[in-house]
Amino acid sequence: MSQSTLHRHLKTHLIFGANTSLGKTIISTLLLRNTPYSHYLKPVSTGPSREADDGHISKFAASAKVKCLYQYKEALSPHLAATGDVPNDLTILRGVQEYVQRIKEDSGRGSLFLETAGGVHSPTPSGTSQADAYRPLRWPICLVADSRLGGISASISAFESLHLRGYDLDVVCMFEDGQYQNHVYLRDYFEKKGVNLVAIPRPPERNQVVEKDEEKLGEWYEKVGGSDVVKEMAESLMERHKTRLSNIDSMAGRAYNKIWYPFTQHTSVSPRNILTIDSASGDCFQGHKASERNKELEVLEPMFDGSASWWTQGLGHGNPELSLAAAYSAGRYGHVMFAGTIHEPALKLAENLLKHLQNLRLQKCFFSDNGSTGMEVATKMALSAAYEKYKWDKPKNEIGVIGLKGSYHGDTIGAMDCSEPSTFNEKVHWYKGRGYWFDFPQVKMINGQWTVRAPEVPELADVSSEYNSLGEVFDIQARLSSPIARKYRRYVRETLHKLVKEDKMTFGALIMEPVILGAGGMLSADPLFQHCLVEVVREGSSLFGPAMTSPASDPDAWSGLPVVFDEVFTGLYRLGRFSAASLLQIDPDVSVHAKLLTGGLVPLCTTLASNSIYSAFLGSEKRDALLHGHSYTAHPIGCHVANTSLTRMREMDQDGSWQTFKNGWGGESKTNKSSVWSMWSEDFVRSVSKQESVESVFALGSVLAISLCDDANAGYSSSVAAGLQQWLSSGENGPKVHSRVLGNVFYLMASQKTSQVMIQSLEATLMKGLASGSKS
Amino acid sequence: MSQSTLHRHLKTHLIFGANTSLGKTIISTLLLRNTPYSHYLKPVSTGPSREADDGHISKFAASAKVKCLYQYKEALSPHLAATGDVPNDLTILRGVQEYVQRIKEDSGRGSLFLETAGGVHSPTPSGTSQADAYRPLRWPICLVADSRLGGISASISAFESLHLRGYDLDVVCMFEDGQYQNHVYLRDYFEKKGVNLVAIPRPPERNQVVEKDEEKLGEWYEKVGGSDVVKEMAESLMERHKTRLSNIDSMAGRAYNKIWYPFTQHTSVSPRNILTIDSASGDCFQGHKASERNKELEVLEPMFDGSASWWTQGLGHGNPELSLAAAYSAGRYGHVMFAGTIHEPALKLAENLLKHLQNLRLQKCFFSDNGSTGMEVATKMALSAAYEKYKWDKPKNEIGVIGLKGSYHGDTIGAMDCSEPSTFNEKVHWYKGRGYWFDFPQVKMINGQWTVRAPEVPELADVSSEYNSLGEVFDIQARLSSPIARKYRRYVRETLHKLVKEDKMTFGALIMEPVILGAGGMLSADPLFQHCLVEVVREGSSLFGPAMTSPASDPDAWSGLPVVFDEVFTGLYRLGRFSAASLLQIDPDVSVHAKLLTGGLVPLCTTLASNSIYSAFLGSEKRDALLHGHSYTAHPIGCHVANTSLTRMREMDQDGSWQTFKNGWGGESKTNKSSVWSMWSEDFVRSVSKQESVESVFALGSVLAISLCDDANAGYSSSVAAGLQQWLSSGENGPKVHSRVLGNVFYLMASQKTSQVMIQSLEATLMKGLASGSKS
Repeated sequence: MSQSTLHRHLKTHLIFGANTSLGKTIISTLLLRNTPYSHYLKPVSTGPSREADDGHISKFAASAKVKCLYQYKEALSPHLAATGDVPNDLTILRGVQEYVQRIKEDSGRGSLFLETAGGVHSPTPSGTSQADAYRPLRWPICLVADSRLGGISASISAFESLHLRGYDLDVVCMFEDGQYQNHVYLRDYFEKKGVNLVAIPRPPERNQVVEKDEEKLGEWYEKVGGSDVVKEMAESLMERHKTRLSNIDSMAGRAYNKIWYPFTQHTSVSPRNILTIDSASGDCFQGHKASERNKELEVLEPMFDGSASWWTQGLGHGNPELSLAAAYSAGRYGHVMFAGTIHEPALKLAENLLKHLQNLRLQKCFFSDNGSTGMEVATKMALSAAYEKYKWDKPKNEIGVIGLKGSYHGDTIGAMDCSEPSTFNEKVHWYKGRGYWFDFPQVKMINGQWTVRAPEVPELADVSSEYNSLGEVFDIQARLSSPIARKYRRYVRETLHKLVKEDKMTFGALIMEPVILGAGGMLSADPLFQHCLVEVVREGSSLFGPAMTSPASDPDAWSGLPVVFDEVFTGLYRLGRFSAASLLQIDPDVSVHAKLLTGGLVPLCTTLASNSIYSAFLGSEKRDALLHGHSYTAHPIGCHVANTSLTRMREMDQDGSWQTFKNGWGGESKTNKSSVWSMWSEDFVRSVSKQESVESVFALGSVLAISLCDDANAGYSSSVAAGLQQWLSSGENGPKVHSRVLGNVFYLMASQKTSQVMIQSLEATLMKGLASGSKS
Repeated sequence: MSQSTLHRHLKTHLIFGANTSLGKTIISTLLLRNTPYSHYLKPVSTGPSREADDGHISKFAASAKVKCLYQYKEALSPHLAATGDVPNDLTILRGVQEYVQRIKEDSGRGSLFLETAGGVHSPTPSGTSQADAYRPLRWPICLVADSRLGGISASISAFESLHLRGYDLDVVCMFEDGQYQNHVYLRDYFEKKGVNLVAIPRPPERNQVVEKDEEKLGEWYEKVGGSDVVKEMAESLMERHKTRLSNIDSMAGRAYNKIWYPFTQHTSVSPRNILTIDSASGDCFQGHKASERNKELEVLEPMFDGSASWWTQGLGHGNPELSLAAAYSAGRYGHVMFAGTIHEPALKLAENLLKHLQNLRLQKCFFSDNGSTGMEVATKMALSAAYEKYKWDKPKNEIGVIGLKGSYHGDTIGAMDCSEPSTFNEKVHWYKGRGYWFDFPQVKMINGQWTVRAPEVPELADVSSEYNSLGEVFDIQARLSSPIARKYRRYVRETLHKLVKEDKMTFGALIMEPVILGAGGMLSADPLFQHCLVEVVREGSSLFGPAMTSPASDPDAWSGLPVVFDEVFTGLYRLGRFSAASLLQIDPDVSVHAKLLTGGLVPLCTTLASNSIYSAFLGSEKRDALLHGHSYTAHPIGCHVANTSLTRMREMDQDGSWQTFKNGWGGESKTNKSSVWSMWSEDFVRSVSKQESVESVFALGSVLAISLCDDANAGYSSSVAAGLQQWLSSGENGPKVHSRVLGNVFYLMASQKTSQVMIQSLEATLMKGLASGSKS
């Protein structure tokens, strides 16, 4: 995890060049000469050492402290010049951070200019683009622009490459050229972006005699280095630094005044506990919190994004591939309206999802903007399809759904109505829970043992059981013939019978989150129970309406009720599989996908349905159609970013990126050995479960959920996990972690790209926290 | 409007260079030599004519046809070299299109290579970046990469600049360099993007003797030009062209199989009537429709986006400024979770909106994903605030809203419940219209006369009246003391009294779209009526619940009921003003903004509220809070793009960009002279209103709505406007137009950047269509 990169009294800049050989070192020298307590760092230098940049600085900016981390003799790009033991990017970043640390310890103040090598995308010794490699620092940039013929283009392109990686530009600097006058054009260009361009008289041409060259250059430095324009440039960097600090300092207070936060009781909010996020990179936020002790000087600190930004993050913050995808589709289309039209990103996404979900029932893709709207669409689809079949003579408002207790499908009223009354909705006008919600057995690791724990339902009193591995629990085929499966089926069948026949309820759909009920508290359902529930609902045509058979010609016709799976949170590799439904070995009739869909970038949702559901809306009149649609339906940016991130995640799945994680989850069952796995190791899960303060643990894919011991049933209102949350946020015992809790459930969610090193470090810290009783 | 840019038998490419002097002309020559029926076009050439690119081509690719549009002697960037009458970008584009047209007419087949000047961003004679100037063509690109030191960086940055403008890259070509080996690195880089890199042996160095140089170069061309690698490169471009065509040809069919469209009765959809949108630029789609006659060869045709892509489009499709904004925020943050955190784009957007709406009541900003979710949030806010005050002893489900007939607030159930039953919702399970909706007088131009037309309500029978200008109708202050205002107030007061006292209804909010009710059929309400409705609702505290006064200390306290304005469609300059509420001279307590908010790029919505509304959710418990929130709440991309587009629109408002439009709307009223205006001229509106087939017309901001004569009350089910829609889509009588209709209402919506020339051309075409009785 990269260290703090913004210190109150240490101003840091990256010097990037629009191309190589534009005078980055000369510009650096000018800045160093005009900056008190100045430091110069050249991480990687190539070329003959007599011309080396650090040597030049030592000569012409004698008061500056100078450091070069890696020096290669060949005047080649670093990835070719580097020989022997090539430093990787993390090593170089660490070297930079150590140098920064040294300055802080020495004088604790001043300015540091880090000069990159070549152009913005010139490779590091290990071959990465420098613009990407230095991105975790995100120091403000001095861009040295190109005054040669063609230099306008080179300078603007270089700026765009930096800009799309989220860098901020403090100043553009270049030499004057009377003939091409690039500085005139570029000054106007950058002024519109709020950035100053400083044009500097050309340094003298080089001759053959070194001493003569140096003498002339020395004179030039004396003259130009003392000029107002250079002095003002150096001062403007200090001004920018101060402005940035005061902006960061003010943001929490301004936010407190102006922002109404989601899911937030504002009486508990104060400017002191609002986290200001300056930027994010990979797994980490760069955050600032006014309330933190001893943080007066270190303005920003990296924090692991432990909720994967509300369960959306998949491929790392500030991922340049996704930024480029967003930019490309914005540039190619902007938004284009999506009724009766088609564009490539939407078509590809529909085809992509329908193919890789490997559910032959799903044939059509409907787009909306988020999980909640996608679930409303799914509900409308399912209820209308059921109504088309059964034509109940009850008011449409009295048709309910079958679901699970603790389910949650979103915050719009229609999505809320699919869940039973709870803290989330009890005070909401117009909310009405419409349906019946089964209590269900959960699978969890309890005190070192994988366990299916029965709910407090008399009919299921004796289904609790223990398993050798999580794979065994998910071995649906083996378990289907067990007595437990028979009990599940009987319980569901009898309950539904009573509800329909005695309570006169009418149901139009089965709606549930497969495997994990997220917002309800990361409740991990016994997959066998969910499987059996679907089985029974599908056998029940005569139960839900007038008995009738589907036309044999319709291979994807549903029976009983349409089955809707809310995979908004659980799908698309969050649980280690492309589809969560596959973990249940069930093909739903409608499947909803959001969050990870775009890899963690923009809102988008797809509701996929079978042709049999779709056909229910075919008719002679417009009013028969599904009259739902948002203005930005299937916006090209979301669709293209989704295609890009799904492709990347599928590649990771296939190229073995997760293999080391998977290896740890072999378990002892012979069957389905590798079918379930988590980025959190099973050994760690087992150790956690044995902690005194822990009731149970569950892990799958990138999700880790720890239920802490608590007063019974405090649920969402519980605050027991807050202690652990607080402890991890201090950063005193390991990586600083930003996390969210759900009552007594503490969870962490990695992105799909989090490294094993990071996971192990989080595991170690978490164990310390649990052992030290931090939760109290 | 740019002409078709994709012809079945004419393959066109843009040759861009990663920098100047990389051998674009030599690469072009190699391609031309290996391509049958080849054409070379150099729109702008600079430098001494003996070295001119077209001369080179004529010499070394003798069979190619060669054309240069503008030749300048100085070897400078075109914006400096061009002297005298400098051609603007449109003139150059037109020249390109004329040349393409000539090829089509001559041979009707072949290949055209357009060589750009310098690097990708090198300016055109008028100073625009070439990458932007040629974007309407969006021909596939051959990028000539840089083999010099620093060339890796230059090549990747150039690619990124093109990519973020939505160009597709067909091939990368460059000279080999044994020392730097950029081609090795770049081949790997571009391969990951699915693009081939072709490395070609260096051409001979130049000497001083021209003849000698040419001889050596000729030999080189013979050798290299006939090599397999060059032949394969030329062939691969043809393959790419064919693949692109077959992809476009297949898309409608594939979409028909896989896509479930919003608001669409699929029985009326066939692959032949799905419009394939290849890209979009400015106001236009580049579209392909299988059903069009005689369009076998012209694969793409530009179509004016006449619905502004479902009312979202504000700053033109493929706007590079918005693409860059999206990319920057993606690169800086990705998404960051937004509870208890703050990031700059969200904070700035909240401050920006709260400041510029100039409604002092509005103090807090809540984010959601689209207009529908934003209206659900608004409704939850208003109903809870009212309940906090009145504490009715009725079930929460029985509290209704006051609205207008024909209102529409979105497709999620909660938003639907705010509207009366209609085609949109009558078949939706769980929908229940909750409230009362007033019929209302409308303002429209009827037969050359601005008219307020009374609804069919006995109490308002005699309010119909005529006005000299639209400004007069919107002169609320003058009209407030008129007898009509008194009638409006009395009517509202008596109706509400009856509903509450006799019908025992309970109301919790007034919810309406100010000025125009969009989806209901572009219904233009008399602004005085909406003003008076708010006035009466606000005086009615004793009517809606137990009488009580607000604490005097709360300056933004609401009285009567909270007033919610749905400005999702009407706000943010759609009607020519930052806020539509200002047209009514009403400060609502809650205001909802979406669509144009992001200038037409990605979904985002803000619900703004007063502190008095906000305070109703403060309490000791979490359950008292507004427990609504989406995962991508306040996603940085949306917020930053919104800030960028709001800033740009405000600049346009202030710098006189719309002045010529405004000038046409002086009207005859002395007061409020310039307060209302439209991009559609008043003269045109008047002429349209006099057409026999037209019932009435309304125009404001970028919106034009024409009600066509029809059987009474067919409403949304009417199809009378479809004839006009069809006629305009043919493109035979002017610009080809893609439009949407609402029953008998035909509307066009410009973006905020549409030129007056385009508007005039659309007006002329529309007049022809109306005059020719196309609607029949």
